[in-house]
Amino acid sequence: MSKRDFLSTAGLSRPELDDLLDLATRVKGKRPGQVLGGKTLGLMFFQPSLRTRVSFEVAMVQLGGHCINLSADDLYELEPGEQAIMDGRAEEHVKDAARTLSRYVDALGIRAASRSGTWEHDRRELLLRSYAEHASVPVINLETCFEHPCQALADVLTMRENLLSLQSRKLTLLWCNHPEPKSLGPTHSVLQLAALMGMDVTLAHPLGFEVDHEVLERSKQTAGAAGGSVRVVNDMTEAARGAEVLYARSWGCTKYWDDNEREAMVKRSLHDWRVDEQLMARTDNALLMHPLPVRRNVAATDAVLDGERSRIYDQAANRAHVQKALLMQLLK
Amino acid sequence: MSKRDFLSTAGLSRPELDDLLDLATRVKGKRPGQVLGGKTLGLMFFQPSLRTRVSFEVAMVQLGGHCINLSADDLYELEPGEQAIMDGRAEEHVKDAARTLSRYVDALGIRAASRSGTWEHDRRELLLRSYAEHASVPVINLETCFEHPCQALADVLTMRENLLSLQSRKLTLLWCNHPEPKSLGPTHSVLQLAALMGMDVTLAHPLGFEVDHEVLERSKQTAGAAGGSVRVVNDMTEAARGAEVLYARSWGCTKYWDDNEREAMVKRSLHDWRVDEQLMARTDNALLMHPLPVRRNVAATDAVLDGERSRIYDQAANRAHVQKALLMQLLK
Amino acid sequence: MSKRDFLSTAGLSRPELDDLLDLATRVKGKRPGQVLGGKTLGLMFFQPSLRTRVSFEVAMVQLGGHCINLSADDLYELEPGEQAIMDGRAEEHVKDAARTLSRYVDALGIRAASRSGTWEHDRRELLLRSYAEHASVPVINLETCFEHPCQALADVLTMRENLLSLQSRKLTLLWCNHPEPKSLGPTHSVLQLAALMGMDVTLAHPLGFEVDHEVLERSKQTAGAAGGSVRVVNDMTEAARGAEVLYARSWGCTKYWDDNEREAMVKRSLHDWRVDEQLMARTDNALLMHPLPVRRNVAATDAVLDGERSRIYDQAANRAHVQKALLMQLLK
Repeated sequence: MSKRDFLSTAGLSRPELDDLLDLATRVKGKRPGQVLGGKTLGLMFFQPSLRTRVSFEVAMVQLGGHCINLSADDLYELEPGEQAIMDGRAEEHVKDAARTLSRYVDALGIRAASRSGTWEHDRRELLLRSYAEHASVPVINLETCFEHPCQALADVLTMRENLLSLQSRKLTLLWCNHPEPKSLGPTHSVLQLAALMGMDVTLAHPLGFEVDHEVLERSKQTAGAAGGSVRVVNDMTEAARGAEVLYARSWGCTKYWDDNEREAMVKRSLHDWRVDEQLMARTDNALLMHPLPVRRNVAATDAVLDGERSRIYDQAANRAHVQKALLMQLLK
Repeated sequence: MSKRDFLSTAGLSRPELDDLLDLATRVKGKRPGQVLGGKTLGLMFFQPSLRTRVSFEVAMVQLGGHCINLSADDLYELEPGEQAIMDGRAEEHVKDAARTLSRYVDALGIRAASRSGTWEHDRRELLLRSYAEHASVPVINLETCFEHPCQALADVLTMRENLLSLQSRKLTLLWCNHPEPKSLGPTHSVLQLAALMGMDVTLAHPLGFEVDHEVLERSKQTAGAAGGSVRVVNDMTEAARGAEVLYARSWGCTKYWDDNEREAMVKRSLHDWRVDEQLMARTDNALLMHPLPVRRNVAATDAVLDGERSRIYDQAANRAHVQKALLMQLLK
Repeated sequence: MSKRDFLSTAGLSRPELDDLLDLATRVKGKRPGQVLGGKTLGLMFFQPSLRTRVSFEVAMVQLGGHCINLSADDLYELEPGEQAIMDGRAEEHVKDAARTLSRYVDALGIRAASRSGTWEHDRRELLLRSYAEHASVPVINLETCFEHPCQALADVLTMRENLLSLQSRKLTLLWCNHPEPKSLGPTHSVLQLAALMGMDVTLAHPLGFEVDHEVLERSKQTAGAAGGSVRVVNDMTEAARGAEVLYARSWGCTKYWDDNEREAMVKRSLHDWRVDEQLMARTDNALLMHPLPVRRNVAATDAVLDGERSRIYDQAANRAHVQKALLMQLLK
């Protein structure tokens, strides 16, 4: 974590991850009191949010701190480009917003997950990275198209609570259908952490929905070094076989990233990519996970989401706990 | 209050109501300190709010707690239907939002008062009831088309402060004109509480603006059992005669609930339904009440709203006090 | 400060200003603790805000108090006119909102800076003044078209920190170009305070961008009485010569206030009104100031904004400190 930002799960070492999860477990068991008394966290949302917004605010409040919430509507349009001649619509440069906010608050969280160009453009997370570069306080990624590291921390904590050791445990990350084009953030972030934990990961998706090449290759190396593995399959049945955790989520087609209609056309033949009891029966009595919000009866059926093996609400609840641990590390 | 929700004034018993009002009177006289320290109340507004929003936040802050505010703009669209196949615009099911939020906050307040169909549809308060069903924490009704129970608590506290005993006191609930179609929430909620207190209630409105049949019949029974009465008149002069409290507010036409133009047409001939000094002179030196916001010089004239008998700001101020009492009962 | 409002820098006496700045310096050096514990400040924004919103919330939090934030989206439309017959779109009268909020919060801040008519209309600050008239708690001006007194306090504190005594020091208030029509608030407010401090002020702008006549004449008198001066020039080079502080900001053309297209046309020939290194070289090694947000490379170049003499982030940071002092004076 350079300058103590938290932008990605890629840069974490195994001891750093273990420390975070151990601390999360401790604060989950017993509230640590007003350890962040007088501290403020600025949250900026350029897209709607329910879990992230509420779980961060609850985390700060329970640690004695305070969140200041800014949404796109409250804000001027911001310019991210260096040396821009600002005679257009943007009223302020990201660098000025970042430097100013750094004089007021103790940390900044940014959700900037809109599609704004090609995949090659959006995978660079320009707005988030620009904030991180210019802010002098820690910056936390609240989701981009490319990563959603806080969600992945909660996911790994949830798996650890259920499976105890994650070494060589079988995790299937399964693409599922969705009427809208979605970000790759949760998928990339949890893939990287599962690799770091030495899990045997099966990444399953229809042809055309490949994840970012660089993320995949790096995760294979990380997993290999940790005694685990990452493989890709394009068949649901094969993906389910032997899985101890089935983690479902839709994500966007990086090839047609700036062409929503084409993605929608491709997805018309992919309605089978939905988790139901039949698919769950092929697993090794897998836990079902999904980072909410979920499209019921499109991504997964009511029966499995509300079933005994579902851990979707534990994942959501663990957001608050891992974020408390993260905030304590960044701000104390 | 099943599961300690607060959705309606209909389910309250007289001792429960007296307890709430007594506690409100005590916390109004002397702040009880940080009794809700560390507690969080999530507030969701699907319509604008001034009094409800600010009075709840002030109430929580003064009790040591914290509000997390969510407005429609911050949120995904939510699906309330059971077994829905969610391939439309709604990004999340109410049940998932309710269950998730229950893992973060200690209570939830919901304002969901939009007209979205016929009266038969809207009187069922589907969104509120769905939250209450799926949340595991107390849910508070911040106004629907059908009820506004927090407003009614403040109204009854205001009457009790001025009249001491409410038994057999003469309250007129008077329809007044308004350019927009309004909810029946405050009217229903205060009618039910006035009945419970054994008041002699005159419900006055033009033909066509009948309140909900079931609410009216139940209120007649409640009032009768408590030594009071409920009668309906369609004449303003008769409504004013002998009144000790004149409570004005517009409400919508349930018959043409999904036809705003028709309601507007009917109201064109009802400009006389406005409280002025002449009407007040026909009362028994009545107190004037109105749950804000009020359309000045349409619903009531400046002279009476700013007059010596007006209690409109006391009603508003008492929102904070009754809500403190409510929150202490639900959360302590 | 009648009724302890803070609406303008015009009414301040020199001892009052010195007291505020001295207190700001003390709270900047050492946090005064929970002196506003249990106090609430309501903030109403009818335009976007970054610095004002965050700096006030941080100020209240660090003093133990709490902000309640309301933006235009959360609110009904409000009617400011006396005796209005409210059958239009406005759902509530300003007087009712102000009186109600006064029963809930300990002070109110209002940003109401939209252009809504001619300069003669907008210079009267009707919405702000109406709130101040009807609220029984202190009202703080968070920016109108006419004044931005909190910004000016931060500006004067920043100058004092750098120059120690401001008596007879040379301040140039320089108009600069901007694609949008801007308010005159910061310019008027800082002009009035610089005059009160006895500075030698040069007000520099193109022909047609005269500031409000009454503000200018009053400032000349104030400056004269304090041993300073105010002169107006229409030439950038002359404006820069000898300046010890160059304070740049665009402002609107009061003559064509309700005709944005005409203002835009006039500004097409004014692209030279931009601060760059060449202009700074003509000054007496001046400090560069600008109340953010700033249009980079339009109002001023990156080189000077990011240069060694720039104090733009100190100005922003000082917002929180002067506002703490102000809140302590108004609320303690």
